[in-house]
Amino acid sequence: MERLRWEPDADADPTTYTYTFGGVAPVASVRPGTVISTWTMDCFGGRVRSTTDMASEVCDPRLLNPQSGPFYVEGTVPGDTLAVHFVSIKPREAWGVSSTVPFFGALTATPVTAMLHTALLERTWIYEIDHHDGVVRYMAADTPFTAALPLDPMHGTVGVAPPLGEARSSLTPGSWGGNMDTPEMRAGVTCYLGVNVDGALMSLGDGHARQGEGETCGVAVECAMDTTFILDVLPGYATEWPRLESDDFLMTTGSARPLEDAFRIAHQQMVFWLAELTGMSHIDSYQFVSQASLTPIANVVDTNYTVVCKIPKSLVPGVVAMAGMHDRLRRAASA
Amino acid sequence: MERLRWEPDADADPTTYTYTFGGVAPVASVRPGTVISTWTMDCFGGRVRSTTDMASEVCDPRLLNPQSGPFYVEGTVPGDTLAVHFVSIKPREAWGVSSTVPFFGALTATPVTAMLHTALLERTWIYEIDHHDGVVRYMAADTPFTAALPLDPMHGTVGVAPPLGEARSSLTPGSWGGNMDTPEMRAGVTCYLGVNVDGALMSLGDGHARQGEGETCGVAVECAMDTTFILDVLPGYATEWPRLESDDFLMTTGSARPLEDAFRIAHQQMVFWLAELTGMSHIDSYQFVSQASLTPIANVVDTNYTVVCKIPKSLVPGVVAMAGMHDRLRRAASA
Amino acid sequence: MERLRWEPDADADPTTYTYTFGGVAPVASVRPGTVISTWTMDCFGGRVRSTTDMASEVCDPRLLNPQSGPFYVEGTVPGDTLAVHFVSIKPREAWGVSSTVPFFGALTATPVTAMLHTALLERTWIYEIDHHDGVVRYMAADTPFTAALPLDPMHGTVGVAPPLGEARSSLTPGSWGGNMDTPEMRAGVTCYLGVNVDGALMSLGDGHARQGEGETCGVAVECAMDTTFILDVLPGYATEWPRLESDDFLMTTGSARPLEDAFRIAHQQMVFWLAELTGMSHIDSYQFVSQASLTPIANVVDTNYTVVCKIPKSLVPGVVAMAGMHDRLRRAASA
Amino acid sequence: MERLRWEPDADADPTTYTYTFGGVAPVASVRPGTVISTWTMDCFGGRVRSTTDMASEVCDPRLLNPQSGPFYVEGTVPGDTLAVHFVSIKPREAWGVSSTVPFFGALTATPVTAMLHTALLERTWIYEIDHHDGVVRYMAADTPFTAALPLDPMHGTVGVAPPLGEARSSLTPGSWGGNMDTPEMRAGVTCYLGVNVDGALMSLGDGHARQGEGETCGVAVECAMDTTFILDVLPGYATEWPRLESDDFLMTTGSARPLEDAFRIAHQQMVFWLAELTGMSHIDSYQFVSQASLTPIANVVDTNYTVVCKIPKSLVPGVVAMAGMHDRLRRAASA
Repeated sequence: MERLRWEPDADADPTTYTYTFGGVAPVASVRPGTVISTWTMDCFGGRVRSTTDMASEVCDPRLLNPQSGPFYVEGTVPGDTLAVHFVSIKPREAWGVSSTVPFFGALTATPVTAMLHTALLERTWIYEIDHHDGVVRYMAADTPFTAALPLDPMHGTVGVAPPLGEARSSLTPGSWGGNMDTPEMRAGVTCYLGVNVDGALMSLGDGHARQGEGETCGVAVECAMDTTFILDVLPGYATEWPRLESDDFLMTTGSARPLEDAFRIAHQQMVFWLAELTGMSHIDSYQFVSQASLTPIANVVDTNYTVVCKIPKSLVPGVVAMAGMHDRLRRAASA
Repeated sequence: MERLRWEPDADADPTTYTYTFGGVAPVASVRPGTVISTWTMDCFGGRVRSTTDMASEVCDPRLLNPQSGPFYVEGTVPGDTLAVHFVSIKPREAWGVSSTVPFFGALTATPVTAMLHTALLERTWIYEIDHHDGVVRYMAADTPFTAALPLDPMHGTVGVAPPLGEARSSLTPGSWGGNMDTPEMRAGVTCYLGVNVDGALMSLGDGHARQGEGETCGVAVECAMDTTFILDVLPGYATEWPRLESDDFLMTTGSARPLEDAFRIAHQQMVFWLAELTGMSHIDSYQFVSQASLTPIANVVDTNYTVVCKIPKSLVPGVVAMAGMHDRLRRAASA
Repeated sequence: MERLRWEPDADADPTTYTYTFGGVAPVASVRPGTVISTWTMDCFGGRVRSTTDMASEVCDPRLLNPQSGPFYVEGTVPGDTLAVHFVSIKPREAWGVSSTVPFFGALTATPVTAMLHTALLERTWIYEIDHHDGVVRYMAADTPFTAALPLDPMHGTVGVAPPLGEARSSLTPGSWGGNMDTPEMRAGVTCYLGVNVDGALMSLGDGHARQGEGETCGVAVECAMDTTFILDVLPGYATEWPRLESDDFLMTTGSARPLEDAFRIAHQQMVFWLAELTGMSHIDSYQFVSQASLTPIANVVDTNYTVVCKIPKSLVPGVVAMAGMHDRLRRAASA
Repeated sequence: MERLRWEPDADADPTTYTYTFGGVAPVASVRPGTVISTWTMDCFGGRVRSTTDMASEVCDPRLLNPQSGPFYVEGTVPGDTLAVHFVSIKPREAWGVSSTVPFFGALTATPVTAMLHTALLERTWIYEIDHHDGVVRYMAADTPFTAALPLDPMHGTVGVAPPLGEARSSLTPGSWGGNMDTPEMRAGVTCYLGVNVDGALMSLGDGHARQGEGETCGVAVECAMDTTFILDVLPGYATEWPRLESDDFLMTTGSARPLEDAFRIAHQQMVFWLAELTGMSHIDSYQFVSQASLTPIANVVDTNYTVVCKIPKSLVPGVVAMAGMHDRLRRAASA
């Protein structure tokens, strides 16, 4: 099993990070099956560090959501599927940060849901990340309210180069993955991404110590993240939209606007996937998914919204997806 | 504790059911705190009973989704909140039914998402409801695939008369409740509905032995239901959009199109509710909800779509909502 | 030719108006072909009369958008189409009124597009209606800017009782017509509405001295209106969504959310209508509509949004729609 | 006045065209004020030439909508506005082509509005372009129906490199322009585009002999186009979303999903623009736009939908936009 340790610049030179999927040269080339150990900056590039740092003041909008990568996977070509198995995802520090950002979020006017309101109050919250107790600690700013929320580290952004020669901002999710912002992207999970260019060009970032479903205000408990993952390839198997697999669930995603289209994509993809895996007809699979799916919203704040469709594996015993890739990588990870 | 047993017509005369919220005279009048025991027809009015019964052939579109009720609650007036606590919800039979219906569902053109496609294949599936094992059994039509899915009975439709003198079809969800189609509406849960007319005029129906989140094809595992519930009132407390409370969760709902508006409503309402319950400012509550909420989709098929926002009570220990109504009704139910 | 003069209450008793389509007893019964002369209140019920009257303070939300009617048309039954031909539409006064209304309009958060903003500034503008010069005069409040806009009187709200036993607020447009808010509803135009209940139960209101397409702030130049129209019937011809016909255009409408669904309805209906009128196949009609249609937005502010699809009659010479109803009523009107 | 004649490859080598905005090196560098004469391929790259050519069979999806350019405009930098004045737009041939394309268009399921339908019938129509009579001639395929539609040549796609390092497919419209597909982009019009990268990098293509508003089936009367335009610059004046100016109208555009967001953008931008031009407050401008705007839909088929907001210049006499750029270029064009 090959291993790669790749470090972004320790001094946080923003030019050593990647801000688009596509249009960027790889930082390293690996063979399928390689275990990559790296770390990622937080979505603010480390510039929001206290409750007096306001993102709109200290951040350059061109340098938001820095990604580590892209990694070129040798031998993979368009029409393949890239498997990204998360071995571990751990916050690098004992703190995380969230904020409201002017004209960004689900409960505010935005540049696209364009209105005549003034911006909501911009505010920054610092969370204590208590690794020992496995919680993040919230402190309200205006009252003494506090809360301990379960630590649940994940990556908001995981993706490959998109098709059609596009380069897409790391703020956007789509068929290439990207900024999906689903809490399902946690350690122990395998993410499947359709390959659009030679080498796939996978990168990741946007670590969250945790987030609510929908990421309502647009910002999770953001933190730099130490992450280990395995990259592997399913040659000749195309994946239209990102899929995830955990020990307990098969998952499809859709990213689009309006939100019902994200729902439609995720569920159409699950209908097709289960039909393929079980031999069911599409109409029978449609019926089955209608009764069996769980459907958490991932984000309603990014330039596309993301919905996840989950099917408990316990409801389809014996089904093996993606040629057993997840189980194989799970075993490799524990080895 | 007063009790009412109310039976719809045993011979299933469709005119003894209610097909709108609002615009219908009450079938009974009860005092706050009354335990009502009744049963409800399935959404097809019992007319789809085998895999050869097609809804589009055997059902009159004016007689879909019959409701039992409405019940007039004495003394309640606009500006109050009605609490509906579900003591028990049990399928009446050992079978349920689902189907695809032409131009209805999330993955088909509809009369509103109007296109030029011909309808998808219309098909009916009959599920065995196994009360003993607590499962519903799915049998695919085109292949031998079968699956056992957990029995999880609930009501798709619970509501009161809407405001502005409207009478709304039982197929539509909105601020008055109605056809929200959320699997959270199960036994042990209290549903809070803002009162718009004297007596509230609450009715219910559309029992589901279970449904997937989103109710993708538009039809759950439909069945007649034996249901016991308590109606109670919070005088002088207005509720804008339906809320639910279980032993473990506070929940808000939003029903609208596009789906992001349903999300926005549910989350804005939760921000306001938690601010009220904890004393937090709105902006602090917005931040808290952003990290703490679970957000399952209820339906993406009805004339409005429905999203639920859930906050685990464990994250806000000590908070008492709705003057303790849920705990009180829970105790009353077990008495 | 029969004539009816019907007057709402001269003292503006709000209970003599109608606030829903459906659920209301008719004010008069007429035979097909009757010329009805009446007048309508403005959308505020005449309560906003100066720049210091704020709608949110002087209006009862239950008494917004009062309608004159409904009129029962003898002999018409579900499955027929009602034709409403506007002979004349004239502002009753020399002034009109517009305003911003808190949380209402296209460029503000609303109760459905729910956010955390405070309301935009509420303000009332009074327009001079200059009948002689055929303009309405706008005066900005904060600067000396003024503008003369062409007088173009129309009715925002025209409809019949909806199907499924519903009663729908006069603030809502849908398949029954209602609050479509299209400037195309002017004198010389015939509006076709599918009949859902015996007698159709047609009413109208919401006169606008003019409005922009989209009615962006949610309020046009509102005024009481003197209106004469003819009601006639096409027996046995069903119309799914409201259509309009002028001397120069065939028009279809769709009212839904999101706005693309309103577009889809209007254009699907035009594809079907032209196929019926010309004998073209649906796919050929789809192609023709794609190159020939004009598509002004009607409103993006009401509880459903409305889009109009227009086909110049000059592009389909010889086509006669609705059995020549428009030309016949046009001649009758000029007689 | 400088002039540039730039020709794409006469043999139609697809690699000499541009398929993205951004991410492409310029084909030529010009000074502000240069008159560029060029021609553009049709959206199919010239591969659909008869009613038996099906786009899904003869076209490579990576080579759809080829653009001529990009042109580097010397001295222009981010924060400037590029003016593109269309001197003439003329179909190169005596024929145009339209088609239905599987899973593309407003009245069909698409990869994003994902459903379970099979594709609509794929069909190609060839139009005669009659330059003498100024019409395009439609012939239905299934019946003898024909129609003559006014020739109204325009460019569906005009844009510059987007911000944030993105490269966006020529199939997509957005703040950088791109595939807006508005019939307003005709000769005599000036299009204003905010500059995001040094030199602006403007390209254009997708000529339409005419199109209906909304471009319902997704394909207009497509044709290669001989086009002459002037590129000029407003230094230091930023434009958020593309604007157009004709002799008679000021126009703003918005491109987004859902369609109401495209409407919101266009109208918010017009509110801001008119406030700037007249000195009105935003709330007064909001009111004025609400009564004065025309709002044709441009497209409801592309990866973003586009809406145009038009204000007749006759309603704001004396107003001079963009420092008189349009009138100046109009005069230069006629010189």
